[in-house]
Formats: sequence, structure tokens, C-alpha cells
Amino acid sequence: MKILVTNDDGIEAPGIQVLADSLREIGEVTIIAPLKEQSGVGHGITMQIPLRVIKYDKNGKFFGYAINGTPADCVKIGVRNIMKDAPDLVVSGINHGSNTAINIIYSGTVSAAREASIMDIPSIAISLTNHAGTDFRFCGKIARLLAKKMIGKDLPKGTLLNVNVPDVPEGQIKGVYLTTQGKSKWDDVYEQRVDPNGRDYYWLTGNLTVLDSEIETDQAAIKNNYVSITPIHFDLTDYAAYEKMKSWKIERLMD
Amino acid sequence: MKILVTNDDGIEAPGIQVLADSLREIGEVTIIAPLKEQSGVGHGITMQIPLRVIKYDKNGKFFGYAINGTPADCVKIGVRNIMKDAPDLVVSGINHGSNTAINIIYSGTVSAAREASIMDIPSIAISLTNHAGTDFRFCGKIARLLAKKMIGKDLPKGTLLNVNVPDVPEGQIKGVYLTTQGKSKWDDVYEQRVDPNGRDYYWLTGNLTVLDSEIETDQAAIKNNYVSITPIHFDLTDYAAYEKMKSWKIERLMD
Repeated sequence: MKILVTNDDGIEAPGIQVLADSLREIGEVTIIAPLKEQSGVGHGITMQIPLRVIKYDKNGKFFGYAINGTPADCVKIGVRNIMKDAPDLVVSGINHGSNTAINIIYSGTVSAAREASIMDIPSIAISLTNHAGTDFRFCGKIARLLAKKMIGKDLPKGTLLNVNVPDVPEGQIKGVYLTTQGKSKWDDVYEQRVDPNGRDYYWLTGNLTVLDSEIETDQAAIKNNYVSITPIHFDLTDYAAYEKMKSWKIERLMD
Repeated sequence: MKILVTNDDGIEAPGIQVLADSLREIGEVTIIAPLKEQSGVGHGITMQIPLRVIKYDKNGKFFGYAINGTPADCVKIGVRNIMKDAPDLVVSGINHGSNTAINIIYSGTVSAAREASIMDIPSIAISLTNHAGTDFRFCGKIARLLAKKMIGKDLPKGTLLNVNVPDVPEGQIKGVYLTTQGKSKWDDVYEQRVDPNGRDYYWLTGNLTVLDSEIETDQAAIKNNYVSITPIHFDLTDYAAYEKMKSWKIERLMD
């Protein structure tokens, strides 16, 4: 099995190393990751500057390919130009910090896996619910077990699995839950400061307002020490609204 | 009615001017847009550099606020810090080029409207299917008519309307269609070049592979000279896959 491993924290991040090491037990791993941290870039792609592909060494040994772009760029150019054969699986992570609820929208980690799903390649995004340096090994194990489980299953093309792992010792993990995307949102605050030249600038900050209590949602599952696995796709159509809007007689908009 | 107008082509782009002028007929418009072009940034948000808010003049007169960030940033900081009261409507565009099918994922124009929908503010993204300089006036009229129609309707919170307008003379427009997101995808090609120092670099290019023939999809509707209106949301859960995966016994992943 050929596996493309990427992330959004950048090729130097410890999470991608642990993920690659774990997945090497079940396949041939190629690392293609952003040269620099790309948190919050969403499904951005690079079109205004050209991409560079840098052969990247770690500890004096070839580690992978670093790209001066976004996680989605890494998957695109990785599959199209760097890997000889298309990978059987793309795994993105291990992200520092959860990618649940509304965070999925902003996440480079999830977008890399979503780019793979657009190419009909099975894919996983995996995140640990902690921003600090921490132990990614249990996450690596979950990625490997899930990769083995998903291959050969009849998951629809265009679906990826978004995995979130609570940052607690393995013995405190209560189990694994199949979940839906939660509805929790950020209460954004822009912290205003003044630079040495007297001009204002703003840093985005704020807190996640937790609006999910049902264990079947990603946000509640991780809060209750369950590993959360959510199937997501890139069809953004709101079918309920579509049905509702049939009564609008939108075809008469210009009358 | 207070209306926030933004885009992803940047505050200098002609489309935003036409849009603002058209919407001024039905409300009080505040323009808050990226300082520079942001095509393809998806739902990226700026977290690694601080944001600046620049009062921007056009023809010697205050035009709007320019932000050194993404379209989603513009909506966030616009609603939270710049506008005194939350807007009743956010309209993003008029984009140069269609935002149909898979392009929705990469679109800064759509992501700005989606950011508004996350804040429970009714919103519209509007695009013209042409990249060249062209006449945006019919688009501006469609945005205005739709804005009037949607206010007061029972559209679910969290739903935005993604509008695509064929670039043909108004007399050739066949009508307006309520659509779903199409399945057309890009056949990506990275064009490889060599810089004056002998190093390779890559430009993203390629063609859209049209996989939509049903008129009820955005891509087919515009091809047939219909204005396409698609309700989209930010719940990415693949509910069909979720039901299917119940047979996976995922809770036994670690057994």
C-alpha cells in the first residue's frame, strides 16, 4: 500500500513524524508537506506564485518533500507530479489541536484529506486535542488501525474520515465513536494593539462556544474522552434548504 | 437594511463597485474587502500575522475598508469590529469567473458568504462566468433582486445562496434555476519551468472536466444560459456514509 502523508503544521512538526513512522508498518510512506506552518488556511490553493518542491532532509537523511504552499497544494502536486503511482491512501496530520465542529471549515489538515477525496483517493485527517508538545503515539496507532479498516470497505468516493483524538493517557480513552460534525462555533474577538508607529493592528483570538452535548457529535465525543470519527464530503448543497426554496418560485426572480 | 459587501478579487476590482452601487438602491452599504486579490484562498483565515484596517479612498472619496487578509477575515473583523451594528445581509462578489461545482471549495468569494452564514447573517455569493473585464450590471441587478426576495424568507440559519450568472447579454439569459452543487472537477496540471538559476518551479493550470449534464446542477445551468442559485451550508457531514459506516463496528477499532 502506497501512502501519502501530509499535514498543515509543516514538515518540521513532530506530529507528521510519528504519523509516518506508524504508517510505515502497513505501507510505503511518502511525506509531502508544507515547508511552513499553514494552520487556518482552509482549502486554499496557490495560484499567484509558483510552487517549489524541496527535497527535505532530517538528521542527515532524506525525510520527504517540502512545498512552499498549502496542504491542498501538497496533495495536488504530490499525486500529480511527485509520486510515480497514485497513492492508495492519503493521511493528513497529526494536527496539534482538534478539528471538530466549525474548525473543520478553517482546517488545512482536513482540507488536505478533502483534496485527496476529490481525487477519489481514500483519506484520513487526524488531530490531537492539544496544542502543546505532547505524545502523538496513540494517535499514530489509531491512524494505522483505521487505515487498515477502511481499505476495501465500500466508503463512497469523495468521502474522507475526520478523526479527533482526546489528549489523555491511552488508559483513559473510553472508546471510539462514529460522529457527525458538531455545531460549536468561535466567539471571535479581535484584540486591538498599537504598533511603535502609532498604528492599530488586530490579532484574532476568542473562545469556542460549545453548542454540542450529544455524544454522536465530534465535539461532545472528544470532551467525553472518546476518539471521534466523522465521515465528511465536499458536497456543500443544503438539500433541506433546496427543498424549502422550491416554494420561493425563484424562476420568477426577474419578473 | 445594512449590507456588508466584500469580495475575493480585492477592493480595487470592478465587480465590487458595481455590486455596491446596485445594493445601495435597497440599503446602506459598507464595503470591507481584501487589500489584494485573494482568489483560491478558500476559507482561509489569518492567524500568523496581525490584521490591519485601512480606510480606502477611490476617486478622492472614501470607498470602504481594505484588510490585509482573506475574504473570511473581512467578514469576521467587519462584523465584530468595523460595523457598529451587525449587518442584515452580507453579499460577496461580483467574482470574475464562475464558482460552481468543485470551485466552491476553493473560492474566497463563497467562503466570505459562508463566514457570514456561520454568524447567522443571511448572505449571498455572486459570480460572473467570465475572467475578463466585462459588464457586471446584470449581475448587480440579480444580487439586488435576490437580496430583496430572501429577506424575511424562512431560509435556515447557516445557509447561504451561491449565485452564478452566465456572461451573455441579458436578452440571452433563459431564466433562473434553483440548483445543487455539481460534480465537475479540475484536471490539474502543474506546468514545470526552470528559473534563471536552473531551479524548477511549477504553475498550477488545467481544465475543468464537466461531469454535470442535469440542468438542476449549477454547472449545467450556467452552460445553458440560466442564472444558477444554490443553497449551501457548512455541515460537511456525509450522512449517507455515516449510515453506511454503522455496519463497520467502528467502536471495536481498538479490539
